[in-house]
Amino acid sequence: MKALTLSAEWAPKPGYDLTEKERELRRPRNANMTWKGPRITLGDAPDPSLKPDQVMLAIAAVGICGSDMHMYEAGEDGYMVYPGLVHTPNIIGHEFSGRIIEVGAEVKDLRVGDLVAVEEIQWCGECLACRRGFVNHCLDIEELGFTIPGAMAQYLPVRAKYCWKLDEVAERYGEEEALVMGAMVEPTGVSYQGLFNRLRNWLPGNNVVIFGAGPIGLAAEALVIAAGANQVIVFDPSESRRAFADKMGASVSLDPTGIDLDEAIMQHTFGSGVDYVVECAGFADRTIEPLDRCLAVNASIIDIGMGGDEPTLPIVAYKRMGVQYAGSLGHAGGPFQQVIRLMASGRIDMRKMVSARLPLAEAPAAFKRLENRQDAKIILQPNPL
Amino acid sequence: MKALTLSAEWAPKPGYDLTEKERELRRPRNANMTWKGPRITLGDAPDPSLKPDQVMLAIAAVGICGSDMHMYEAGEDGYMVYPGLVHTPNIIGHEFSGRIIEVGAEVKDLRVGDLVAVEEIQWCGECLACRRGFVNHCLDIEELGFTIPGAMAQYLPVRAKYCWKLDEVAERYGEEEALVMGAMVEPTGVSYQGLFNRLRNWLPGNNVVIFGAGPIGLAAEALVIAAGANQVIVFDPSESRRAFADKMGASVSLDPTGIDLDEAIMQHTFGSGVDYVVECAGFADRTIEPLDRCLAVNASIIDIGMGGDEPTLPIVAYKRMGVQYAGSLGHAGGPFQQVIRLMASGRIDMRKMVSARLPLAEAPAAFKRLENRQDAKIILQPNPL
Amino acid sequence: MKALTLSAEWAPKPGYDLTEKERELRRPRNANMTWKGPRITLGDAPDPSLKPDQVMLAIAAVGICGSDMHMYEAGEDGYMVYPGLVHTPNIIGHEFSGRIIEVGAEVKDLRVGDLVAVEEIQWCGECLACRRGFVNHCLDIEELGFTIPGAMAQYLPVRAKYCWKLDEVAERYGEEEALVMGAMVEPTGVSYQGLFNRLRNWLPGNNVVIFGAGPIGLAAEALVIAAGANQVIVFDPSESRRAFADKMGASVSLDPTGIDLDEAIMQHTFGSGVDYVVECAGFADRTIEPLDRCLAVNASIIDIGMGGDEPTLPIVAYKRMGVQYAGSLGHAGGPFQQVIRLMASGRIDMRKMVSARLPLAEAPAAFKRLENRQDAKIILQPNPL
Amino acid sequence: MKALTLSAEWAPKPGYDLTEKERELRRPRNANMTWKGPRITLGDAPDPSLKPDQVMLAIAAVGICGSDMHMYEAGEDGYMVYPGLVHTPNIIGHEFSGRIIEVGAEVKDLRVGDLVAVEEIQWCGECLACRRGFVNHCLDIEELGFTIPGAMAQYLPVRAKYCWKLDEVAERYGEEEALVMGAMVEPTGVSYQGLFNRLRNWLPGNNVVIFGAGPIGLAAEALVIAAGANQVIVFDPSESRRAFADKMGASVSLDPTGIDLDEAIMQHTFGSGVDYVVECAGFADRTIEPLDRCLAVNASIIDIGMGGDEPTLPIVAYKRMGVQYAGSLGHAGGPFQQVIRLMASGRIDMRKMVSARLPLAEAPAAFKRLENRQDAKIILQPNPL
Repeated sequence: MKALTLSAEWAPKPGYDLTEKERELRRPRNANMTWKGPRITLGDAPDPSLKPDQVMLAIAAVGICGSDMHMYEAGEDGYMVYPGLVHTPNIIGHEFSGRIIEVGAEVKDLRVGDLVAVEEIQWCGECLACRRGFVNHCLDIEELGFTIPGAMAQYLPVRAKYCWKLDEVAERYGEEEALVMGAMVEPTGVSYQGLFNRLRNWLPGNNVVIFGAGPIGLAAEALVIAAGANQVIVFDPSESRRAFADKMGASVSLDPTGIDLDEAIMQHTFGSGVDYVVECAGFADRTIEPLDRCLAVNASIIDIGMGGDEPTLPIVAYKRMGVQYAGSLGHAGGPFQQVIRLMASGRIDMRKMVSARLPLAEAPAAFKRLENRQDAKIILQPNPL
Repeated sequence: MKALTLSAEWAPKPGYDLTEKERELRRPRNANMTWKGPRITLGDAPDPSLKPDQVMLAIAAVGICGSDMHMYEAGEDGYMVYPGLVHTPNIIGHEFSGRIIEVGAEVKDLRVGDLVAVEEIQWCGECLACRRGFVNHCLDIEELGFTIPGAMAQYLPVRAKYCWKLDEVAERYGEEEALVMGAMVEPTGVSYQGLFNRLRNWLPGNNVVIFGAGPIGLAAEALVIAAGANQVIVFDPSESRRAFADKMGASVSLDPTGIDLDEAIMQHTFGSGVDYVVECAGFADRTIEPLDRCLAVNASIIDIGMGGDEPTLPIVAYKRMGVQYAGSLGHAGGPFQQVIRLMASGRIDMRKMVSARLPLAEAPAAFKRLENRQDAKIILQPNPL
Repeated sequence: MKALTLSAEWAPKPGYDLTEKERELRRPRNANMTWKGPRITLGDAPDPSLKPDQVMLAIAAVGICGSDMHMYEAGEDGYMVYPGLVHTPNIIGHEFSGRIIEVGAEVKDLRVGDLVAVEEIQWCGECLACRRGFVNHCLDIEELGFTIPGAMAQYLPVRAKYCWKLDEVAERYGEEEALVMGAMVEPTGVSYQGLFNRLRNWLPGNNVVIFGAGPIGLAAEALVIAAGANQVIVFDPSESRRAFADKMGASVSLDPTGIDLDEAIMQHTFGSGVDYVVECAGFADRTIEPLDRCLAVNASIIDIGMGGDEPTLPIVAYKRMGVQYAGSLGHAGGPFQQVIRLMASGRIDMRKMVSARLPLAEAPAAFKRLENRQDAKIILQPNPL
Repeated sequence: MKALTLSAEWAPKPGYDLTEKERELRRPRNANMTWKGPRITLGDAPDPSLKPDQVMLAIAAVGICGSDMHMYEAGEDGYMVYPGLVHTPNIIGHEFSGRIIEVGAEVKDLRVGDLVAVEEIQWCGECLACRRGFVNHCLDIEELGFTIPGAMAQYLPVRAKYCWKLDEVAERYGEEEALVMGAMVEPTGVSYQGLFNRLRNWLPGNNVVIFGAGPIGLAAEALVIAAGANQVIVFDPSESRRAFADKMGASVSLDPTGIDLDEAIMQHTFGSGVDYVVECAGFADRTIEPLDRCLAVNASIIDIGMGGDEPTLPIVAYKRMGVQYAGSLGHAGGPFQQVIRLMASGRIDMRKMVSARLPLAEAPAAFKRLENRQDAKIILQPNPL
């Protein structure tokens, strides 16, 4: 089959401390310390085979994620930019949908022909974190498109328990559009997890600030609007991304460069301050850190974005105003069902952030095009819908 | 000033047990056991005077509530239908907005000219329930339009602490429309309290069933849609009320008469069952009680409607599915702010359920017209907006 | 190996509607409609074999549960009393601990020699309920000692993911006592799930009423005391069970027969009323139903007990006081870890409710002895500790 | 009457920006920027008079708080150490109990002779924060013993709504001991608010780390033990304070100086890590900031302590482990009732941290003695109990 493969040279930086197992599996926890000269190649890969608890998918749509870009890009030192868990060579791609073309012998609830979106986090279901219900923090995690083969390919076998059916969406929009939307369930689920499953204190009517208008920030924006946000203020330095934020329904989108964030937020909340702050930019030291005078009593800060320096936080203000903060990671354990339903009932339409739908053959060009971060989301379509 | 006064004859039913204080104040906890031959009269009332912690309102808009109808109507025995706390003679009306025309000496945050909506529940702020934060369950409660004079009049003095400003709404819609919307903050707040402040487990993407398409049910409908509901199924036997439910955006509205509720709900949730059940009909024995096979795992039941017989509940199903139930009462302690913001940002537009705007002079005719329950909400306008 | 086997005659009552699969597997959802003449036999059973994801346990201690009694007992019609899911012939026993004597090839975190307690609920981890985190409501459940072989035997193979280590307990109390305590993690977990995982609103300082001083009620009592309850009022008609309740630390234990529950509760809460009501008696129509005037504002009702008629509930009071209710089932998904820790730190000592420790050979006599419900818990010990 | 008065010289530091009102009222938000040469004097003060909504207390017991010490002490620059809201001259003292000797005309639920503890936070009940239920974050706050006269005096008039009766405690321990305990309701309430009212996710069985074994830390320790904590690890550099921590029941108390906090915590939690971290030391940069590898999945950080530099927080770990943080302030809105009950039922006994009970006449000596922070709590007794 055709597939897009990420390769790099195994060159651990001197002094970087690898465990025996990381060295053996070439699966370090910090890709940016070991993988040099990353590159992607479109080519032929062996057709995958099916295990009894899996279904085989013909991949219909797969989005290019910021993490995909960070695996593809090298820093000034020539090493992969992405700082997390990566094995190479590997087929990447983890935001996707597909049609089931074969069903393993032990699979109960899925049929050939079903359309599904799939969790990227391959939680084990057996470790202490999973057994306590915190599957996003699985202690024995695998990640589709990072440590094991992903979806920028024609076919992919996945365990049935990670699949969520798109039939309600197809009922409303038809199969083709349901599959495109389906590729955006994963990133939207990441925002959903942060907004509604972490602190469990969301209230319709909240004033919201979102930092970052990349796909996670735009998904957060769509979700808070669908969930009854009052003022929705989106900050992003990129003009084209602010245009996406406006299109998704922001009350106002602003360039944070050089402005007093507290003041801007007070102004755009009629002096009430912000109730929910959502960090999707990956620069907490420049986004969360400066917020001091704009926090409403009982404000919440949801921290999803990865990257940037550790922030020095104004905890005196947090105590004075009764503020809470939550770090958030992942999308498993419920968000997929809720996100799919929000799509099915038309409460969110993530297609607004898709700037192109391209065949898999154009994947290398698409990565190139995304280097300047003008697009929000490009969808690759390895098979005809 | 002009005012609409409710009168009735004090005739406690034999055997009904009144406390000394209830007898002295003519303020029984069960109006239907003591007040005979209720009637409303439009006439002149003395102009009210202002206390230092109050503001004087020129009433701009006041809705006629189901409770108003139940105070106005007599049952077969000739007694008032309303079963709760009532004093007469009294000016009724408790869903309202107004313009401040005078400000008491101790009032800090309000000015002449401000537009406000006002809480009906006059919580004391000093009893144990209030001090623990449960102001809707105040142990020393007064109720505007029930135990003390209400808003179907030209003027009303109210304590500043019960007032919530409408300026964000006026900014978007202009003063006139803001005042009409303002009269619907109270009933919408009742639904908000039940949906979002009681169990604190609402999740966008939930399937919802609402019983009753009167004003409280329609407000619940608007709120769950604004908060990201997936399927929204509304039951009401009245065709005209179902038409309002459809207009407000229900996925489907159904006549519950003679149908299998479980089956209907399973069908309209694609077999997933219901996550949130909202009782706004006041017939829990015919609405909540029959629901057994349609409850999703972790379903919640919010019980707002007053009236009907006590239900015999299928608690085996509640245990098997992990179901929770919450009784809800009132609208104070936060909902007003959030509801006003939802109006200001256009997430809800309660004007869709207004069937007429009439001057106070037509109040008697409006009560007459509402006897057949074909309208959703009629707004009286005692003063020009 | 030696094992205690439950047998009965397959005799579905006329008119009872069995599915094809229930008939084929002889695994009806209502044992009391199909199994006649139940009896237990101590005898030889084939030694079990191990699957790769399992560990083999030498059973150290196994409690006799109320459900065990209900499977063993016949009603007046000669049918099994237990109303739930049962297959026979089957080795029963589901509250137990053991020592690992063999470890399957795929098992990661357990070793030969480890002492463990085991979840009775064999949740699949793959159905929609499990994937949403509600493993106690697994749609494809098996139950140890009900539908598949249990622990009243010398050996039992169990999946590693259902095992929780007792080493912290053994550190404090030694292995022998840790294993006896370990047999009580399951029933204590059932109460923990209801008290702390359902409504998530427990507050230290709450006044508590517990109905039923059987093992689940006594476990609830121990837990609320360990969690900072103020007044703890336990109701049970059995004098010997009230004596256990007193021994566990109840503020007062009362015979509910013929008394005014509201009045008694008001008296023993200094007029404050009850904050947490816990139903562990299985007679909601006689326990929860009468409570009306004794509920504090924001009271919660936790319903764990199975059995009795459906209650007709005073929902007017629930609304007036802002009351919530939750049905609770199961113990999986976290409670085992927390209960084991509460034992390890000495916050609870469930041995107080053990009235006898007997070898497996005396199991039939133990069942006989329990028929009069004078004991709280009898522990069988199939292997030397 | 006799009273202890705090005085200082009004000498705003150059460049410190005072509002007109702060200057006029001599009530700056930062005492350490304006008040020079603080000193306390025991002397005669005018007898206070009563308002209609107040009760007059004969003060029975008043604790010396860390804040009292910080108002009394000067830094190297000669200015008051305390950084918050202070007016002088003022009678200080805010942790206290008393007996009611006179009742205002409008007071309903209190009688002469009642014993009460009193909230220090004089929340207005009318501002937006109060009306939304966040009374600890009142926008129009007064503070007993900081901005208005406090309890280190023979008599004090207080509004009835800030009083909580101690009768349940007196029932168990007698009046004298109830009044001593009553003086510790306020600081215990501060810890209660942080632990149980902020994130609302406490679970019995949690592993807990507490930083600081001053009164707030010791109260937190007593509370988590009463609420079912498993391991309770207390850090404090002072040997005498660690001795108090041990006496209150810590699993282990440790000197944090120069040790690897992560490692120590992992060791004392059997490798499980900590579930609840409680900052009561006021040095978040040295307590919370270093914690990285010892946080269990779903760990919570409660930040109560005031002071120290702003911390630079390891948010990558917070996201990886799903950690939440809450700043906490105050004790109003419910904690008093729950704390008093925990005392009444003997679940906590805060007398363990009292190192001396002294007459008011010895107040100056007591302040002197506390300068070296060897004591936990000294109680002054202005009137005979």
